[in-house]
Amino acid sequence: MSVTQGTQDTPATRSARGTQVAAYAAPAAKAPLERTTITRRPVGEHDVLIDIKYSGICHSDIHQVRDGWGEGIYPMVPGHEIAGVVSEVGPAVTRFAVGDRVGVGCFVDSCRRCEYCLRGQEQYCVEGMTGTYNALDRDGEPTYGGYSTHLVVDEKYTVRIPDGIGLDVAAPLLCAGITLYSPLRHWQAGPGKKVAVVGLGGLGHLGVKIAHALGAEVTVLSQTLRKREDGLKLGASHFYATGDEATFEELAGRFDLILSTVSAPIGLDAYLGLLKVDGALVNVGAPEEPVALNLFSVIGGRKTLAGSMIGGIAETQEMLDFCAEHGLGSEIELIAAGQINEAYERVLASDVRYRFVIDAATI
Amino acid sequence: MSVTQGTQDTPATRSARGTQVAAYAAPAAKAPLERTTITRRPVGEHDVLIDIKYSGICHSDIHQVRDGWGEGIYPMVPGHEIAGVVSEVGPAVTRFAVGDRVGVGCFVDSCRRCEYCLRGQEQYCVEGMTGTYNALDRDGEPTYGGYSTHLVVDEKYTVRIPDGIGLDVAAPLLCAGITLYSPLRHWQAGPGKKVAVVGLGGLGHLGVKIAHALGAEVTVLSQTLRKREDGLKLGASHFYATGDEATFEELAGRFDLILSTVSAPIGLDAYLGLLKVDGALVNVGAPEEPVALNLFSVIGGRKTLAGSMIGGIAETQEMLDFCAEHGLGSEIELIAAGQINEAYERVLASDVRYRFVIDAATI
Repeated sequence: MSVTQGTQDTPATRSARGTQVAAYAAPAAKAPLERTTITRRPVGEHDVLIDIKYSGICHSDIHQVRDGWGEGIYPMVPGHEIAGVVSEVGPAVTRFAVGDRVGVGCFVDSCRRCEYCLRGQEQYCVEGMTGTYNALDRDGEPTYGGYSTHLVVDEKYTVRIPDGIGLDVAAPLLCAGITLYSPLRHWQAGPGKKVAVVGLGGLGHLGVKIAHALGAEVTVLSQTLRKREDGLKLGASHFYATGDEATFEELAGRFDLILSTVSAPIGLDAYLGLLKVDGALVNVGAPEEPVALNLFSVIGGRKTLAGSMIGGIAETQEMLDFCAEHGLGSEIELIAAGQINEAYERVLASDVRYRFVIDAATI
Repeated sequence: MSVTQGTQDTPATRSARGTQVAAYAAPAAKAPLERTTITRRPVGEHDVLIDIKYSGICHSDIHQVRDGWGEGIYPMVPGHEIAGVVSEVGPAVTRFAVGDRVGVGCFVDSCRRCEYCLRGQEQYCVEGMTGTYNALDRDGEPTYGGYSTHLVVDEKYTVRIPDGIGLDVAAPLLCAGITLYSPLRHWQAGPGKKVAVVGLGGLGHLGVKIAHALGAEVTVLSQTLRKREDGLKLGASHFYATGDEATFEELAGRFDLILSTVSAPIGLDAYLGLLKVDGALVNVGAPEEPVALNLFSVIGGRKTLAGSMIGGIAETQEMLDFCAEHGLGSEIELIAAGQINEAYERVLASDVRYRFVIDAATI
């Protein structure tokens, strides 16, 4: 049995085939986003209906809307940094109730059977995770993301947002936050460890906050010293300009872990030179083109060049609990839905500190 | 007090400034090696004098003789895979006695104070390890390697060769053996793990033997199936040709660990595709030129691209003990010193199964 709460929170038009809800979508590749109506599936046995409150704008939204990775499904409703409140639950739902504060990140399903799903690494599902948008779900229907008023999702792919974090500043944690938290934990950032974050943007600023909260000594490596004050305020102890060659001499052999959040090509050999023996350079951002690497840069010090991609559901919950405990959220600029296209231009110009978040009440 | 044993084992001409011994040296860059005489330092407080019995030929000997890495010191006596017998010990030596079977690998000294030296990773010494040849020692004197009849070395940089291994087949373990053993241990090859070894040469054949002895399931990835029978005999369960594109489809996502021993450029993205989530591609061989890498190859599965360089003294001893316990040694082709130049050509043509070892009695 489904429970419905308050008409103001429920979608307007319901039918056996689903519910019509408002959303912002790109009607075709590279087209500007515009207001439209989409159908959300009926709330199933294990589903929750989420009344979306906020949705973050991730750089990858722009990539996909503009077909940068190819094979986009249109109309496309982006958004995988979703925070809201449960307004209805399916009869078999056990973990959530109406009124719960919840989040949804980059995926809404996976095969649930492979070794990675079974160990809580759904993001590496052998069959491929089902993306929150720009994907086909297990029934072959396109998925639509968080630039919308409502979302229906299986409770297994829903996480709880603790009371300690505002829903607006929590939204970006669902992608950007877990993208940094997961490798920081996996490569054991903590007391006694020197961690560098390359790039102080939507990803990087959360990397600084989380690494600092984990107890590591944090250094920001940014192109210029323009954001120095911000970096130190966010928790960094040091701030260096990578545009200055002297940085690479001064910091040689300094770090246990470097997290690169940039998607522009970086000089891998130069950054590997900043690592201690057994250190790791972990890429969570990356250019689409191949980059050059001299393998002697990893051989002479048993260094690791690695990558990491978001995190599983359990680790995402752990991240949210950690952020609530430490009072961490994203630095955001709240916008109305009508400003999305303008916000995209500003993201591309690196003109945001540090994440745009759409107020879903304006959709 | 020094102890001298038997005149037949002692160098011919001694003086306060050292002892004249026979060796094979390259008089200048790219010149063929020829018989000559070099001076070994007097046996110091902590030194052992080693009566060299066998010396392996490593591919890097050829690189250095031919000045492939630049800045060669000539005359150059190569050789860092040295097996012999102690024929004299300095008064402060505590760990070795005359008659002990011993080995010396790629380095004969290091700063002894840095964090890496202190934790037994002398190969990553902050000041740089002192190479067994083609280096200057801490007194500024050039070091001369194992293509010689005798060697004087500090006991701290000397390891014991257990009775279970012949000195001839032990010699290549001092460089090739530890080069493979160290990453196999560090990345935890063992029961339940699937390990691939790329290239079945001097390094690779020892990788197969050691990984198999550690309990891993071993696959050889070789350009062709030419050495298939050898590979299976050495301990591999599977053998694939990398010249066949189908190999990369069939083995996608298969391995926990891939060790690349080749110095030709390999397609990193293709090999990374053969790894499981959290798998590692570790390079112990490498081309001198940069290679291309698409960082998404490591991001989509939290994969590691790493390198590793020989091992420390303690781990080298551990490796020799392990090899003795499991009856492992190198497959060798024993040659007389007069055949060194010819052997170099055959190494370059990959025409050796699997390591040339010089019989020092012929020097």
